[in-house]
Amino acid sequence: MRRIRLIIEYDGTEYVGWQVQPNGIAVQEAVERELAKLTGERCALHASGRTDSGVHALAQVAHFDTQSRIPADKFAFALNAGLPRDIRVLYSDEAEPSFHSRFDVKRKSYRYLVLNSPHDSAFTRNHALHVHHKLNVDKMNNAAALFLGEHDFLAFKASGITLENTVRTIFASEWSKHGDMLSFDVTGSGFMYNMVRIMVGTMLEIGLGRRDAKSIRRAFNEKSRSTCGVTAPAHGLYLARVEYDGFDTAPFIRSTFIF
Amino acid sequence: MRRIRLIIEYDGTEYVGWQVQPNGIAVQEAVERELAKLTGERCALHASGRTDSGVHALAQVAHFDTQSRIPADKFAFALNAGLPRDIRVLYSDEAEPSFHSRFDVKRKSYRYLVLNSPHDSAFTRNHALHVHHKLNVDKMNNAAALFLGEHDFLAFKASGITLENTVRTIFASEWSKHGDMLSFDVTGSGFMYNMVRIMVGTMLEIGLGRRDAKSIRRAFNEKSRSTCGVTAPAHGLYLARVEYDGFDTAPFIRSTFIF
Repeated sequence: MRRIRLIIEYDGTEYVGWQVQPNGIAVQEAVERELAKLTGERCALHASGRTDSGVHALAQVAHFDTQSRIPADKFAFALNAGLPRDIRVLYSDEAEPSFHSRFDVKRKSYRYLVLNSPHDSAFTRNHALHVHHKLNVDKMNNAAALFLGEHDFLAFKASGITLENTVRTIFASEWSKHGDMLSFDVTGSGFMYNMVRIMVGTMLEIGLGRRDAKSIRRAFNEKSRSTCGVTAPAHGLYLARVEYDGFDTAPFIRSTFIF
Repeated sequence: MRRIRLIIEYDGTEYVGWQVQPNGIAVQEAVERELAKLTGERCALHASGRTDSGVHALAQVAHFDTQSRIPADKFAFALNAGLPRDIRVLYSDEAEPSFHSRFDVKRKSYRYLVLNSPHDSAFTRNHALHVHHKLNVDKMNNAAALFLGEHDFLAFKASGITLENTVRTIFASEWSKHGDMLSFDVTGSGFMYNMVRIMVGTMLEIGLGRRDAKSIRRAFNEKSRSTCGVTAPAHGLYLARVEYDGFDTAPFIRSTFIF
């Protein structure tokens, strides 16, 4: 038995998310289907974490076990031959038998794209949130800096989700501007369900002048979801980078212009 | 009667091209349909030129005449409210009654994107040609420079098309590299049907080592389509910039990262 590790890029637009759901096709399902065709086995695919419906991944990590004799590095090419074009395996290798995509994660990074312009773009309509009111990026960056360090993110937890530990450490949290496109890049020890989207939704309200940066400190103190902003839509969010001891997806992330 | 001018961005993936065709929806048709709803008139929309099925536009220019009293600058917002999200009007104004989108063009620029990497991208699958063999960009740039100046482009004309004048002047012709993404940017006095795609197809064969840069000089001398390379696919091509005396789409072109 060998443990094979994949780095997967996907456009989440057409999927119900990473994990198998009754109401549509999941990315996990599409890849497992191709694995079954290739190996003749029923391989269970374990990812670094789930992504929601419409959320994208620049470099998701997943592993599976197989008795197949296909060389580890050939899985990327063999899977891509059969997968839908909106899912691409960028890399495959053989991992240590003890490696686990989810349990061994040290740091994760997400990106959230916002197109701030009078009109939306025909090209990024499913890949960046369009905001037509002018955003104050300096204010958003002041707010982003308040997330740095160790905090109890209970207020940034989706309601209805029960978790024992809501403390997370944020190592990087910054907005950058490329023409009309704003990119929020955040790295942390881990993220709860919807946490990045609630952080972004709160900062967008700050950037629009509807809320003060201080409200982030208040959210940490009061620990109530109602002190935060709305949950930003899924289609601007990308799982960007996953880091393990001795394995990092950064070299596989494309920094590609659409135009 | 007023002449209204539009700058239109579109993702050509789902369209049969700019011009109305029997086998699917054209961009022209989609916009004319919305104009009819807004104005109650049957407005004929004239563009700077056609684009083929699958070809994109960063800033196409088109005009129409109307008796409607909608303020000229409001057409962009009003049209976008009804248009499919893969067509966006970036700007609208009132032009001189003598302005003509096609006849008055002074220079046009196209962009062609090539993703040169072992695996295609989930995100640019319909927006850049994927080439997995390593391309020699220096060789492609040596070839690109040979297009500069005035030449008879008869060899770069799609067969079956009859044209009296096949002489065109190229003002800029260059490949640039952004990570794995190669961008060919070309500006000329005008371009014939498929001309940019045949130029790109020929340069790609040069970049793969299957053809010599000299073959471009030979194509100019022999004036035969068979001396050139294949026609590169439509989905990597963008109508980028259209220039008139006193009107230029450059400020409206977004330089947007997809990630």
